[in-house]
Amino acid sequence: MNKKPLIFITNDDGYASKGFAAIVEVATRHGRVVAIAPEHTQSGMSHAITMFSPLYLRKVRDEEDVQVYACSGTPVDCVKMAYDYLLLNDRPDLNISGINHGSNSAISVLYSGTMGAAMEASFYGAPSIGLSLTDHSADADFDATCEFADKLIGKVLAERPAAPLCLNVNVPIGRPEEIKGHRVCRQTRGYWKEEFYCRKDPRGKDYFWLTGDFDNAEPDAPDTDEWALRNGYIAIVPVQVDMTDYKRMNEMEKLLE
Amino acid sequence: MNKKPLIFITNDDGYASKGFAAIVEVATRHGRVVAIAPEHTQSGMSHAITMFSPLYLRKVRDEEDVQVYACSGTPVDCVKMAYDYLLLNDRPDLNISGINHGSNSAISVLYSGTMGAAMEASFYGAPSIGLSLTDHSADADFDATCEFADKLIGKVLAERPAAPLCLNVNVPIGRPEEIKGHRVCRQTRGYWKEEFYCRKDPRGKDYFWLTGDFDNAEPDAPDTDEWALRNGYIAIVPVQVDMTDYKRMNEMEKLLE
Repeated sequence: MNKKPLIFITNDDGYASKGFAAIVEVATRHGRVVAIAPEHTQSGMSHAITMFSPLYLRKVRDEEDVQVYACSGTPVDCVKMAYDYLLLNDRPDLNISGINHGSNSAISVLYSGTMGAAMEASFYGAPSIGLSLTDHSADADFDATCEFADKLIGKVLAERPAAPLCLNVNVPIGRPEEIKGHRVCRQTRGYWKEEFYCRKDPRGKDYFWLTGDFDNAEPDAPDTDEWALRNGYIAIVPVQVDMTDYKRMNEMEKLLE
Repeated sequence: MNKKPLIFITNDDGYASKGFAAIVEVATRHGRVVAIAPEHTQSGMSHAITMFSPLYLRKVRDEEDVQVYACSGTPVDCVKMAYDYLLLNDRPDLNISGINHGSNSAISVLYSGTMGAAMEASFYGAPSIGLSLTDHSADADFDATCEFADKLIGKVLAERPAAPLCLNVNVPIGRPEEIKGHRVCRQTRGYWKEEFYCRKDPRGKDYFWLTGDFDNAEPDAPDTDEWALRNGYIAIVPVQVDMTDYKRMNEMEKLLE
């Protein structure tokens, strides 16, 4: 029986991304790693699951303490394949999703495949950490994220916080020495405002590219994740999945009388 | 200037589904309808957006007070195309997503394309109603859902509740006279437990079908949506999108000291 902790890793950028390789390396310092990550990029896939096509799984790395699989489905599919198929007899002690190339702060938690997978993994009992760097580039510098992740993984494995626990960790761009520290935050209020680029395809049909900007509804609130990131701090938001709007329940009862 | 209220409709089963046709008919009793629905089924697509391919839009129905478009993207893409492209100068008074063929109660709110679209639409200011019937069949009986939706649409248009408002409405199977009434509920705790069917494709490779059951963590709680549905009531959960787990913030600050 292998006594090292088991760390499950997934992401939404795909198994070949730099951020994924970076966190696998950090995790191996703390235990065994089993990872299932998407074959291809699944950014913006949120909590999507694959209902109308079958899933394929193939092993892409096989070492004593590091096994990596690529899955044809979404990030949440990867988690379900891990917990309800591959790891039925070897349950993880910790889940990590990332490191994402790009921020998943504020309302982006809802669109993010990284965070969809992190939440889903937390449902199975072990704590989940979603890790994102506010840099979309393929060759982003993950050193500061790795340094913080190393510390966080150690603390979570040592303390074993009560389940379910899911953390949305976003790291600002910068070398480790430029990061001011970390802040436990709440999710910033605000929405994405889209702009569609319209072009014509070679057959004369209009097509549209979705593009947008986040409209921060509370830019000056220092307890929010957006504020932390803009001021050089790592932002940590504990995430839960009861979406009930308790404050509106009485009003809705009256509306429907 | 047309003074009738404008009702925006979308869904996740696609523009050709029976539940979509049913709610479009109900909505026309209350105002003009502009709908953008997916070309094909998008069940389980959650809050996903299309980032790496362009979107197409085509008109499939064009009457004075009913215009329906099919969009190549996800349910949330449909909403964004409506609000940030098609309806820039004619803003909806109400959003409806559905009627979904199948339940979106409890944690399914997180996986549901119907509810992803309903939430997204609520961000733009008008109230949103996600409607689902607990019957997956293509030829489901939507009469009871339509009867309740007709009443709900009238009340919401008359009262104009404060924004953002998003309702997750699930209707049990049954003829209108069999429904016991409605209950404003909270989201039931519990998760889906999956089982993978493994088969071999013609080239000898394993493939997997995701299938599962909802594991209700509080089957006897009468204030939950699952309880309401199992007992013959329409379940209405007001939904909000701040996913911060406020109760864990102090604990996380201590963990990271």
